Amino acid sequence: MKKPFFELMTPQLTPPLTEVKNGTVTSPAGFRAGAVYSGLKTPGPDKLDLGILVSDSPCDAAATFSQNSILSPSVTLSREAIQGGGKFRAVVVNSGNANCSVGEHGIIDAREVISLAASQAGVRPEEVLICSTGVIGVELPMGLLRAHMTEIELVDDGGMDLAKAIITTDTRLKTRAVSFEVGGKTVTVGGIAKGSGMIHPNMATMLAFLTTDAAVDSGLLKQVLSDAVDVSFNLVDIDTDQSTNDTCILLANGAAGNSPIEAGSDAADTFAAAVRDVAIHLAREMARDGEGATKLIDATVTGAHSVDDARLAARSIVSSPLVKTAVYGRDPNWGRILMALGKTEIPLDESKIQVFINDIQIVESGAAIPFHAESVVQALGQPEVYLRVALNVGDGDATAWGCDLTEEYVVFNSAYTT
Amino acid sequence: MKKPFFELMTPQLTPPLTEVKNGTVTSPAGFRAGAVYSGLKTPGPDKLDLGILVSDSPCDAAATFSQNSILSPSVTLSREAIQGGGKFRAVVVNSGNANCSVGEHGIIDAREVISLAASQAGVRPEEVLICSTGVIGVELPMGLLRAHMTEIELVDDGGMDLAKAIITTDTRLKTRAVSFEVGGKTVTVGGIAKGSGMIHPNMATMLAFLTTDAAVDSGLLKQVLSDAVDVSFNLVDIDTDQSTNDTCILLANGAAGNSPIEAGSDAADTFAAAVRDVAIHLAREMARDGEGATKLIDATVTGAHSVDDARLAARSIVSSPLVKTAVYGRDPNWGRILMALGKTEIPLDESKIQVFINDIQIVESGAAIPFHAESVVQALGQPEVYLRVALNVGDGDATAWGCDLTEEYVVFNSAYTT
Repeated sequence: MKKPFFELMTPQLTPPLTEVKNGTVTSPAGFRAGAVYSGLKTPGPDKLDLGILVSDSPCDAAATFSQNSILSPSVTLSREAIQGGGKFRAVVVNSGNANCSVGEHGIIDAREVISLAASQAGVRPEEVLICSTGVIGVELPMGLLRAHMTEIELVDDGGMDLAKAIITTDTRLKTRAVSFEVGGKTVTVGGIAKGSGMIHPNMATMLAFLTTDAAVDSGLLKQVLSDAVDVSFNLVDIDTDQSTNDTCILLANGAAGNSPIEAGSDAADTFAAAVRDVAIHLAREMARDGEGATKLIDATVTGAHSVDDARLAARSIVSSPLVKTAVYGRDPNWGRILMALGKTEIPLDESKIQVFINDIQIVESGAAIPFHAESVVQALGQPEVYLRVALNVGDGDATAWGCDLTEEYVVFNSAYTT
Repeated sequence: MKKPFFELMTPQLTPPLTEVKNGTVTSPAGFRAGAVYSGLKTPGPDKLDLGILVSDSPCDAAATFSQNSILSPSVTLSREAIQGGGKFRAVVVNSGNANCSVGEHGIIDAREVISLAASQAGVRPEEVLICSTGVIGVELPMGLLRAHMTEIELVDDGGMDLAKAIITTDTRLKTRAVSFEVGGKTVTVGGIAKGSGMIHPNMATMLAFLTTDAAVDSGLLKQVLSDAVDVSFNLVDIDTDQSTNDTCILLANGAAGNSPIEAGSDAADTFAAAVRDVAIHLAREMARDGEGATKLIDATVTGAHSVDDARLAARSIVSSPLVKTAVYGRDPNWGRILMALGKTEIPLDESKIQVFINDIQIVESGAAIPFHAESVVQALGQPEVYLRVALNVGDGDATAWGCDLTEEYVVFNSAYTT
């Protein structure tokens, strides 16, 4: 059964999930976090740039990493650790320096940061994952990290500080947590993320940390994260550039005391919905906070031959510079939407295409229909703009998120730094 | 044998080719052209928007078209005609209207335009190819086309007028012709193109018309065009958006009287070099004239595992918004070049990478080396900026062309049109 367009427009919290107010990665039981300012980022009020997330007990972990051929040694080490299996207790993260393209020092420094964080958190180095985000090509100032790591206080409500420590030039914090019941136990999934506020040159990293106190079968944990990333972070596009440092980590410590959630159960479906909710919320906030953005663009493609086709098309629409500038200019320029759709080369039947901007239909059977232009212009002036394309050739649906392209994007990213 | 970087920097005319001054599609013998203003484009001094290119004798033809799933019926008809084989005499082209996404009228109108052009040129409709570029979603104003087609005068030196008639908001004409000798006969290859000056919403089409008076084996003709497009127009990237109307046509009428050029001969190599020269020249001019651009970016990747890898990487560099804004801002931000390279996911060995901006090396063994920053800033201030990445893992080389991303791009493309 197809949902009508207006129902698709606002993401709803699916029962039985409930939102945790001001939820973060420390909302689930048994997680603590803390952060300090170590001097990696330009000084400023309330700035933090080095943080640790720690679990009181060992966690099952799942993670996804950048596919870029150039990777930060921080990514390389974390990826190797995750692939090696085992349990994890902590994540150390710094912003202001990507620890990338610095030659052999990158690995040596990343290992030392892990070691410093392990001491501070009271865990073993092999239980620590590492993430870095910031300038490419500059060695980590290890003196600063050694001096300030020991100042990090790991506290029960430290998630908001950690959310601050991972951002670069994001204009708002991105946090979320939801809860539900499993066999009489309340379990929580929390998350924080940083997006692509790329005001400072080279900063384009997507980092997302998710935690849960649920006990979850480790195979299911990996599947749930992978599925959630596919419909959230992988469908965000700010400017088509993929960072060398992108990382998404999900830690599950079982502190809720539930009997482990197994694949195929109702609890598994609810847990997947919870992780998806947190991931999609963070992904949308990331798109909304895209560098220079004034609007969130939410593009849904329905009725494609496959879900993959729908994802490709939705992502192509939100990443098209011509669509992004048209939305910025409140220009109901639907030809650009069709162009962006078509350049994916997915199979379609032009005579079946319908296009909607918010709830206003502007294209039927592949050609323009009369519409009240001023209403569309007004719709395009909202902080959230919904572009909907119904292909009507199959059952594949997908939504992707992006932002408009403004002069500010160019100004920020062309800043003359020398 | 590898060319040193400084030799790669300025494209040179390869002997025995010689440039034809002010050369166009009517430089080769036996081609005439003409154009008028029919009212499709906004009126302005010296504006033309409807033109015909005609050959005095039937031509072998080769062509490449947009791969967009949404195609203009003008493209559909021309593609069918080319696929059907046979000989061609004329091309009719209009700017100001893409004849795209207008329902069934698109095909009916395109057929009538072909018929009107055939009458005017004195050829049969099945000998006419059609191209359209301009606004998507608006029906062709056939009354204007019927009234003005008969005013087109087809003259020997009409190529420059045709070059004017195909542009939309390009700031300069794009024309080129070169000559060489085949068995004592002088043959000429000429071309005109329009690029992506997308000031007017929806206009992003690439059109290129090439002509030659050489007699050329028809299989060789197709191969030569396909190879030339791969190293020219297919390596231009203005903003990653692919038009619904892109077309490149090569017509060969044999008027030079040479014995037909056959594959495998020296003449075939020279002919291929001539077509490549014209195509690369037009492609570079297209990139230089990208909407809002202040600079041409010429990115060369050498020593990739394959030519395909090198093309992918070079194109990724010129199309990266972060590289484009850095070049605009004269910011020697080489981390972005590595990011754009790496996001293609091609295999590489980071420790072997060298990066040059013009002739200044800034990265060795994958990490920064000391360089005189002000020299690089000055290099980035030139109207042509050369970014060079040596991967040193294989023999694949490629060059791609793009332009910087400026506030002007955003301003033009977000123009509030309603």
